[in-house]
Amino acid sequence: MKNSKILYQHGTLALLVPGLLTGTTTMGDLLAHGDTGIGTGEGLDGELIILDGVPYQIDSYGNANVLKDDFIMPFANSHFADYTEIGTISNANPADFEKVALEGKPNSNTFFSVLVKGTFSYMKTRAVVKSTRPFATLAETAKNQSIFEKENVKGTMLSYYSPALFHGAAVAGFHNHFLADDHLFGGHTLDFKITEGTVSIQQFDTLEQHLPVDDKEFMGHDFSKDDIAKVISEAE
Amino acid sequence: MKNSKILYQHGTLALLVPGLLTGTTTMGDLLAHGDTGIGTGEGLDGELIILDGVPYQIDSYGNANVLKDDFIMPFANSHFADYTEIGTISNANPADFEKVALEGKPNSNTFFSVLVKGTFSYMKTRAVVKSTRPFATLAETAKNQSIFEKENVKGTMLSYYSPALFHGAAVAGFHNHFLADDHLFGGHTLDFKITEGTVSIQQFDTLEQHLPVDDKEFMGHDFSKDDIAKVISEAE
Repeated sequence: MKNSKILYQHGTLALLVPGLLTGTTTMGDLLAHGDTGIGTGEGLDGELIILDGVPYQIDSYGNANVLKDDFIMPFANSHFADYTEIGTISNANPADFEKVALEGKPNSNTFFSVLVKGTFSYMKTRAVVKSTRPFATLAETAKNQSIFEKENVKGTMLSYYSPALFHGAAVAGFHNHFLADDHLFGGHTLDFKITEGTVSIQQFDTLEQHLPVDDKEFMGHDFSKDDIAKVISEAE
Repeated sequence: MKNSKILYQHGTLALLVPGLLTGTTTMGDLLAHGDTGIGTGEGLDGELIILDGVPYQIDSYGNANVLKDDFIMPFANSHFADYTEIGTISNANPADFEKVALEGKPNSNTFFSVLVKGTFSYMKTRAVVKSTRPFATLAETAKNQSIFEKENVKGTMLSYYSPALFHGAAVAGFHNHFLADDHLFGGHTLDFKITEGTVSIQQFDTLEQHLPVDDKEFMGHDFSKDDIAKVISEAE
């Protein structure tokens, strides 16, 4: 069952846009589909990163909390780690990182994940403040976020790349979360500078897209009036 | 392994648009993921329909051929049948059928399949003529198609519904293939009138989207210049 070619995703980024922020899967279920992943909690409760089977939440106070199996999420993905180290990277900004991760191609037509482990001379992250019912739209909810900055931090950046065709299901291009080695800093990355790090890649051949079909609010929502692609490009 | 909540899809409709028509999976592999399905052969070689584990190809001469396990396809989907009959339908055109299949909702946010078994007072189908390398675009290739019409035909219409968010991966809305009970008529439906039939529905919670990552032409293609959504809406 541990097929490392599969990227499992619960929910879509699109459903966050109109504010469908109800938790519709549990961390226990997400971990059954992988030991590595990212996501967010109900009400956009922090930025999640799963490394080596341990799920962490960076909350809007900047704390990294280890999550229990009953933690619920509207949107998250996971996979079983089987990375191949492709080299080291140094003195790199996000554009440099993306170039290395794409290994010379202008883009990719399949999903893949990248891990960078090393020292970052600069890391800027955000964590959204958990909102409560009735949930507002993604654009409104995401305004209420904490921004964190740190210099010279050691840690792991976990990145997922989605092909342009699937923009809306996920965010097209790279989506990166970070966790410091000392677990005192992390979040959804907004900007960074890698001093030196190893780069490892894992390519998938399958997206296992799971939808919250038991959630009446999701199933009954009319997405035709939400400007999904535009809002996602702005919010992420 | 036979999870009837999963819709398996190999390839995307998008990759047909620029003419990536190489067969990248086999019927044997497709049948491992389901006993029911639709698709097309390499070079858009006919319209495929799998019913009760038997794969048929309606070719451009109008013949229904039973396919072998080594038949190759660029794009196809399958699932394990577990339909629930929701009622009968009579005197129904495509709009009436869609209304019944959506059970009163304006649209659906998840994938589902519909089977209509009965008598059709009118059925109009098409089957694309197989093209050879170098493959032209979908718009060019699809011009070369046979149109078939039949009155008072008994058979099965197999339909798949894809949510708007996944337009490009599949075609948003309904996509229907037909096979007559006598196996002498079928294809991709263009128009129909149901005299009387039973309607059965199977809802999925997962799209298992498999991509042809070993195909260099696909992996190296730059889709950014293909007007995927528009071309698909016109061709399908």
